[in-house]
Amino acid sequence: MTRTVIESKTKTVVIGFDEPFCVIGERINPTGRKKLAAELEAGNFSTVEKDALEQVACGAMVLDVNAGVVYNSNPNPNETEPPLMTKMIEIVQGLVDVPLCIDSSVPGALEAGLAAAQGRPLLNSVTGEEDRLELVLPLVKKYNVPVVAISNDDTGISEDPNVRFEVAKKIVQRAADYGIPAHDIVVDPLVMPVGAMATAGRQVFALVQRLRDELGVNTTCGASNISFGLPNRHGINAAFLPMAIGAGMTSAIMNPVRQVEMEAIRAANFLMNHDANGGEWIRFSKVLEAVEGGMSFAEASAAQSSAASGRRGGRRARG
Amino acid sequence: MTRTVIESKTKTVVIGFDEPFCVIGERINPTGRKKLAAELEAGNFSTVEKDALEQVACGAMVLDVNAGVVYNSNPNPNETEPPLMTKMIEIVQGLVDVPLCIDSSVPGALEAGLAAAQGRPLLNSVTGEEDRLELVLPLVKKYNVPVVAISNDDTGISEDPNVRFEVAKKIVQRAADYGIPAHDIVVDPLVMPVGAMATAGRQVFALVQRLRDELGVNTTCGASNISFGLPNRHGINAAFLPMAIGAGMTSAIMNPVRQVEMEAIRAANFLMNHDANGGEWIRFSKVLEAVEGGMSFAEASAAQSSAASGRRGGRRARG
Repeated sequence: MTRTVIESKTKTVVIGFDEPFCVIGERINPTGRKKLAAELEAGNFSTVEKDALEQVACGAMVLDVNAGVVYNSNPNPNETEPPLMTKMIEIVQGLVDVPLCIDSSVPGALEAGLAAAQGRPLLNSVTGEEDRLELVLPLVKKYNVPVVAISNDDTGISEDPNVRFEVAKKIVQRAADYGIPAHDIVVDPLVMPVGAMATAGRQVFALVQRLRDELGVNTTCGASNISFGLPNRHGINAAFLPMAIGAGMTSAIMNPVRQVEMEAIRAANFLMNHDANGGEWIRFSKVLEAVEGGMSFAEASAAQSSAASGRRGGRRARG
Repeated sequence: MTRTVIESKTKTVVIGFDEPFCVIGERINPTGRKKLAAELEAGNFSTVEKDALEQVACGAMVLDVNAGVVYNSNPNPNETEPPLMTKMIEIVQGLVDVPLCIDSSVPGALEAGLAAAQGRPLLNSVTGEEDRLELVLPLVKKYNVPVVAISNDDTGISEDPNVRFEVAKKIVQRAADYGIPAHDIVVDPLVMPVGAMATAGRQVFALVQRLRDELGVNTTCGASNISFGLPNRHGINAAFLPMAIGAGMTSAIMNPVRQVEMEAIRAANFLMNHDANGGEWIRFSKVLEAVEGGMSFAEASAAQSSAASGRRGGRRARG
């Protein structure tokens, strides 16, 4: 039984074959978001706060935190990113209680994030590149955390899924040398755009099944990459996610403030028998009703979520 | 290679593991449609005509035709249904060129339909019940047509998927005794409502894979049954269809005049590499754009479809 345990100070999330699909919110990331990057350099965290609250309300179970800003005032991220990561994690932890995913390519920022995060965060990421393996796996071991393993190596990203499988296998084996168990490796088999590579969907479905059957690992992906460059991307994403879940994918790093994709995931959870009695589906349907009534998906989700925590609070108070 | 070949006078549709998902339009059926039943008894076929045109425009590749009206003037369907089936088939064939699926529980109506249908229709259906096997399989053999095999028998519909598999296997074997090949049997493994049976989704996905791997047969289902009794049924259906397609389901009897479900199927076709270069997806996206512009899905589909046949006509004329 493969269970990847991620924790905040107060909450535990398990990624696993018999668990609801784990939605890791991708929004807190300045990559490609100039306005957010400028805010962060200026010490303004209002968008981070909004993104944290909105994503959790919409159903994110884990929040990715990426502090990859190149400052105009100092172009060396090795100096600027670690303190920014610490600050962002403190702000997010102060607002929401979900576990975090510490996302950086800067070693100092990963370690700063590990020091700042409460509980047992997910580290994002290691690859099959030799220098990354030697750099990241000791951190994974030292802090006893799970890690996202991206299946590219020093030769780049292979279009051959067998090569990507072998890279994943190498990472799992190398981790084992450090005493890191396979259940703490969450493999990203790399999703190619189906508009550019016609076999991209089938590749991922087959890879996910193999990673699960042969390596016993959980999997994740940057789901929206499948629809890159195509019209009506949500429609592709909303079919891809249930198909990937059916094939055995157990998590994705994605934007949860998207009704269509979240609806597809919640329906897939129900169909995989990971939503007892459809309780989550019925609650979600009320959010959709509020959206039909004119609210945005984020507003409707927030309203539903605060109503639910009010009910929970009420029960606790009576308990 | 399992290929179920269905033909109209001019068109061939292949149901198969390497083909786009086959959408069989379910609308031409008076069951539960009182207004349509009354029209049919009165000899008014305007709804049949509208349903035929709309379903084909929206993407139906085969049309189911069911003449199951119990007349107020004559309660014996053995007398009234065969001539009505003949009439309905003639009308539908006069309007559209897709193959037909002849749907009845009345033996005379099945035979009347087989006599009236041009090409090679799909017969709907045989079950594992002894009297149905003895009645329908000789017709399948005589007319050399494929048949839908529903996996219930004289003991009813089993909740145990292993029993349903065994019923399907029995039908395939019995058909073989008549010289009917497995590729002419399209098994309906029976979809239960997930709201009533939490394992309903997983059951079907596993059954479809087994039917394909062990019996080598194509599969179909009444897809919308999965969401019976639940809120926001389209959301469940739109996740179920891609998951079933990923598991190997090759057709469904369904309402194609539903944007959400058709979008899910077209995206799944693309992700299964059954839509070369995404041409169908891009065409469909233009229909969705027209819907956003205020047209109904049926109108937008009809506009796109007549534009496309105009282009095809133009090419033929130049050829």
